[in-house]
Amino acid sequence: MKLLKERIRKDGIVKEGNVLKVDQFLNHQMDIELLNEIGKEFKRRFAQKQIDKILTIEASGIGIACITAQYFHVPVVFAKKSQSVNLDGESYVTKIESFTHKRIYDVIVSKKYLKEGEHVLIIDDFMANGCAVNGLLDILEEAGAIVEGVGIVIEKGFQDGGKSIRERGIQLESLAIVDAMNPAEGSLTFRETE
Amino acid sequence: MKLLKERIRKDGIVKEGNVLKVDQFLNHQMDIELLNEIGKEFKRRFAQKQIDKILTIEASGIGIACITAQYFHVPVVFAKKSQSVNLDGESYVTKIESFTHKRIYDVIVSKKYLKEGEHVLIIDDFMANGCAVNGLLDILEEAGAIVEGVGIVIEKGFQDGGKSIRERGIQLESLAIVDAMNPAEGSLTFRETE
Repeated sequence: MKLLKERIRKDGIVKEGNVLKVDQFLNHQMDIELLNEIGKEFKRRFAQKQIDKILTIEASGIGIACITAQYFHVPVVFAKKSQSVNLDGESYVTKIESFTHKRIYDVIVSKKYLKEGEHVLIIDDFMANGCAVNGLLDILEEAGAIVEGVGIVIEKGFQDGGKSIRERGIQLESLAIVDAMNPAEGSLTFRETE
Repeated sequence: MKLLKERIRKDGIVKEGNVLKVDQFLNHQMDIELLNEIGKEFKRRFAQKQIDKILTIEASGIGIACITAQYFHVPVVFAKKSQSVNLDGESYVTKIESFTHKRIYDVIVSKKYLKEGEHVLIIDDFMANGCAVNGLLDILEEAGAIVEGVGIVIEKGFQDGGKSIRERGIQLESLAIVDAMNPAEGSLTFRETE
């Protein structure tokens, strides 16, 4: 997605340790016009799929998922992160490890809001090692829902997440794939996909 | 807002301890069509104000703020909750106490995304004792921003938050104000405001 790549080059900050900060427009301050273009692009890429619901994970996935959901005319469910879950049998629970925060979270979704046979699209802002998305896939499998695809705004192509999802035969659409970052020069290389 | 009150009566769950669960449509699963009507209503109520930016707080405020921002054509900034902040001088930090989770959080906003003289509208899903909104007001004061108003989806009118904000002379617009809840009957009473 050209507009997104241009924005990452303009306002993204490449830091040591494979960190790409895009909090100027995506995950702290949010440019809603850009989010609308992102939502339209996800709709274009998943236009052939039946989508009943969008699933995302707090916090920075929520805004993108809500704007995107307007183009699919479906509700959004966001998985909640918690460090102490009461296992009451009313929720799906899995564990994920955060790349950014170097922590393990419980991730929970109420059983009321994911049903067997529902066609679900996963949306998130970033994919690195894929832990968050794999956690959401575990929850969808437990619910008996049908995974129609995964839409990611920025994929770090030099980490394993995207490869592992594609190898499972899931339609993964990443709007920008970063294949290399050079913190000394503050530069990055995008995969040519379009 | 009639549509919202009807939805709270239909799908809200009144529980012991003054808990009102609206996770069927507002803060776990999100009904995006309802969020659009909420966004339009906030625009109607703040139509006379100059708004440069919407400020909210993770996680459940984000979706509402993003959908609402489309009607104001402004970016959204969401304050981040953290339990351990590195005070690097690059962020505004304050402490808030969560009514729901009975915990104290640090709340942070990067200084890059709130500037002196910016006209800001605060949006959030719930107001009870007002701690979250008061924390955001502290941050806006520190930034030298201009508070144009506070938009809340559901206010618990029997707690102090709303009163304290109104007494400060701030335009507070709550789309539904709950004045009493009866968990035995599962019923609630709305304030007549329209």
